[in-house]
Amino acid sequence: MKSGILSKLALCIVALLTSCSGTVSNDNQAQKNGAKNGKAPKYIFYFVGDGMSTPQINMAEKAVSEEGFLEVFNTQTCGIYNLKPGRLNLRNFTAAGMANTHAENRYITCSAAAATALSTGSKTTINTISMSGDRTQKLTSVAEMAKAAGKKVGVITSVSIDHATPACFYAHTQDRNNYEIIANYLLSSGFDYFAGGFTRYDKYEKSNLSDTVGFKDLTKDLLIDSLKALGYEVAIGRQQFDALKPGKKALATIARTQKEVYDGNALPYNIDLDILESDDDKIVLAQFVKKGIELLYNDENGFFLFTEGGKIDWADHANDAVSNVYETIALDQAIGVAMDFYRQHPDETLIVFTGDHECGGLTLGFAGKDYESAFNVMKAQNTSFLTFEYLMLDYKKEKKSFDQVMAKVTECFGLGDKQKGLELTEYEKKRLKAAYDHFFKDKNTLSAEETKLFYGTYEPVTVTATHILDNKSGVDWASYAHTALPVPVFAIGCNADDFNGYFDNTDVPKKIMKIAGFVE
Amino acid sequence: MKSGILSKLALCIVALLTSCSGTVSNDNQAQKNGAKNGKAPKYIFYFVGDGMSTPQINMAEKAVSEEGFLEVFNTQTCGIYNLKPGRLNLRNFTAAGMANTHAENRYITCSAAAATALSTGSKTTINTISMSGDRTQKLTSVAEMAKAAGKKVGVITSVSIDHATPACFYAHTQDRNNYEIIANYLLSSGFDYFAGGFTRYDKYEKSNLSDTVGFKDLTKDLLIDSLKALGYEVAIGRQQFDALKPGKKALATIARTQKEVYDGNALPYNIDLDILESDDDKIVLAQFVKKGIELLYNDENGFFLFTEGGKIDWADHANDAVSNVYETIALDQAIGVAMDFYRQHPDETLIVFTGDHECGGLTLGFAGKDYESAFNVMKAQNTSFLTFEYLMLDYKKEKKSFDQVMAKVTECFGLGDKQKGLELTEYEKKRLKAAYDHFFKDKNTLSAEETKLFYGTYEPVTVTATHILDNKSGVDWASYAHTALPVPVFAIGCNADDFNGYFDNTDVPKKIMKIAGFVE
Repeated sequence: MKSGILSKLALCIVALLTSCSGTVSNDNQAQKNGAKNGKAPKYIFYFVGDGMSTPQINMAEKAVSEEGFLEVFNTQTCGIYNLKPGRLNLRNFTAAGMANTHAENRYITCSAAAATALSTGSKTTINTISMSGDRTQKLTSVAEMAKAAGKKVGVITSVSIDHATPACFYAHTQDRNNYEIIANYLLSSGFDYFAGGFTRYDKYEKSNLSDTVGFKDLTKDLLIDSLKALGYEVAIGRQQFDALKPGKKALATIARTQKEVYDGNALPYNIDLDILESDDDKIVLAQFVKKGIELLYNDENGFFLFTEGGKIDWADHANDAVSNVYETIALDQAIGVAMDFYRQHPDETLIVFTGDHECGGLTLGFAGKDYESAFNVMKAQNTSFLTFEYLMLDYKKEKKSFDQVMAKVTECFGLGDKQKGLELTEYEKKRLKAAYDHFFKDKNTLSAEETKLFYGTYEPVTVTATHILDNKSGVDWASYAHTALPVPVFAIGCNADDFNGYFDNTDVPKKIMKIAGFVE
Repeated sequence: MKSGILSKLALCIVALLTSCSGTVSNDNQAQKNGAKNGKAPKYIFYFVGDGMSTPQINMAEKAVSEEGFLEVFNTQTCGIYNLKPGRLNLRNFTAAGMANTHAENRYITCSAAAATALSTGSKTTINTISMSGDRTQKLTSVAEMAKAAGKKVGVITSVSIDHATPACFYAHTQDRNNYEIIANYLLSSGFDYFAGGFTRYDKYEKSNLSDTVGFKDLTKDLLIDSLKALGYEVAIGRQQFDALKPGKKALATIARTQKEVYDGNALPYNIDLDILESDDDKIVLAQFVKKGIELLYNDENGFFLFTEGGKIDWADHANDAVSNVYETIALDQAIGVAMDFYRQHPDETLIVFTGDHECGGLTLGFAGKDYESAFNVMKAQNTSFLTFEYLMLDYKKEKKSFDQVMAKVTECFGLGDKQKGLELTEYEKKRLKAAYDHFFKDKNTLSAEETKLFYGTYEPVTVTATHILDNKSGVDWASYAHTALPVPVFAIGCNADDFNGYFDNTDVPKKIMKIAGFVE
């Protein structure tokens, strides 16, 4: 059964993704046709890479070009992507711009303020979900405008569907942590397709619903019942996902995020797909997008499909470059699905991609390497920081020795493996030993400031291991939080050229609204 | 005399620079006119910020917006710029793109390979000056094409005129360190205007001239004599510079770089202008550009004027953010001069700006600050890293105590000054003490790897002070070398829209060549 599904899946994905490169001249021609037509696009794709700016894109691009990386990637992801040599789908966009990201009240934005800018075209304050900065006025999102214009609308994310970024496309609330209110907005949105991780609201205090009218206390079961009562198919896991057919609204998620609360109810890290037992947890972003096209496609008013790659950001926060590369490629593969659709409908489609902010202060150079890079060593890592952190928690309970921990560090990150070119220096060994003592032995010789700088809020051995591996590859991290680096904006299709230039992140949805004819 | 010259200078510069903002709509209109005309630009400005990518621009933009920064900037720069509130001239460009920078044989480029790409449109190998990667074929630069097309040609830089970046516009040699060959090319170029720092070749071994024909052993005096024999005015210092008039070719430099070899014979750091004794050393990039326009202006074939902001890179290498901001603003002010010219000749002018590569791995966020920034503290610094390094060398000879050194750190960087919000944490004090012990007491308790990571090749107290101040402002550095972050490309004027999009750095001069009609 398992191999049957996997084979089917692999075949399906090969068909999806192998035509996504080498057609630049065609794309350019099609783009010109679209622009010449000058008409509003019937089909709009809007992709956002959370925590994804230029360094993340270029790092992924360079990593996958290294000999042997594709094979490792395909193994780690169970052959789901069947990734082949070729440039990123992102590089096939014909228009490119850049956007500033600051929030109304902070130079370094958060995902809520950034997504409000990217969904409504207005700046707002930190943690606010598609409301004005003073949190008194609801702001209309481009997705809501698309719905009002008669388009089918879908929202997809690799994190939970009520997370700040997707929420800004359908909800309006004063704080991103008002998950229950966000779930109520999900119900009232009338949108046609939600997909990705399930809601995470029941991990939090009940929201104060007094500021809302007609909203109800929700449980996960009640949310599902309510969706069904509204005519949604609720597909949980592989079989139900595959069975989804056009004609009904749908919410699709993997099994794990409906059953439990783990990792913010997000999809698994792509680098960890190989260790998942159930195929019900192995639905990836590209597949949710493919399904979205299938469900929303219509020849009347078309569709608007928003997709977020949300765990690029989380791998940034943890300073885990290799997991980051996997998540970036996963989003790029989802973009490839849209590119294939665009090639079938070049005169009627617009695809826009941007990031919401940079995260981690990723740099494509590191003091210890001078002018050199060695991205080839990235393929030594085969586990996300998260999986390794859980392992370290277990190891601590089991009182494992430093040598036992280091054996696992070598197994999962290659560190200490001479044959992989990853011999450790004395300084690196010292840092790993200090991290071990800090966490395993509770030897807290560091000041609070040093602890914060060296480990952030992460398990010390894990983050020290990713720091060392990443540095050996020639990249570095400056922060465990977001940064203010501007983000790239790429576009292709109808009037894509409007996305050339340097502008504000609020301009991105404004341009879409205008091109689509949602506003004058 | 001194105040007389300064007053005159101040008046001149006020006239130059105060009209450089707030005319965006006009710029847009003018740009459209230029593009509509579709004709080749008569006047071409090409600006390169060395070591300048998006983080450097955004940092400068943010720093100058902080309350009180302009006053400090104007004091440090002796009122030469009379900088006023308003957005960067860089932000008035109407077209914006982004370029990859890698060299033929390395992911992280050097200034020679980058400048070859930016001058000739071809990739080359590390350290090669406008020759093919195998160093057998000379490549023609866009400046040489402009000369062949009958334009007047000028090359300006804030570092020495024979440095890699400017050299790539007129010289062709196998290694950037062949300064004597480069000086010979300067003589044979026939270009009309060279300005900035003087040559630095006599600090190096004599080049092997055997691969060149007609080249001669040069001294600085002989170079000057040779220039004069070729009909050049050689202007050294303020008075001769002011006296330069159109009609003759010219080389203009400040007094210091002709007399001695200091700081690579570059112009002084702008933050240090206040401590220079002689006005003969206070000619800034914006003034060299203004003079260039005056000397090269003609109504026949027009001109091509290349300008490099070279010390942005050097401040990057040293991880000195505040000096970096000053150098970025200085280049932006030079761009402002070109913008003023453009506004007078909108249908006949093209201005292109780009960086050659990022340097330092500058990030607009830092782990110790989480999501916060505090660029206002940057105004506490009043000395370049270089001046402070020389001071530390003296202090070491004088066996100054740690307290004496710290008093100077407080005076020059504000560190330890509670009123400036720059109280030091225990960890920061520990780092400064370790740096002091390392350099002043030769207590070498660090491994070679740690020394390299913490101090690079810089004086330990100085680089620790800039690290701490920069971190407190909310930025961080990852490297003392270049990085592979793509660079922004901005343009305005005739066919500026061609510079929208994402492309390779080799495309930048190719676009100029095509727009100017130098190639088909």
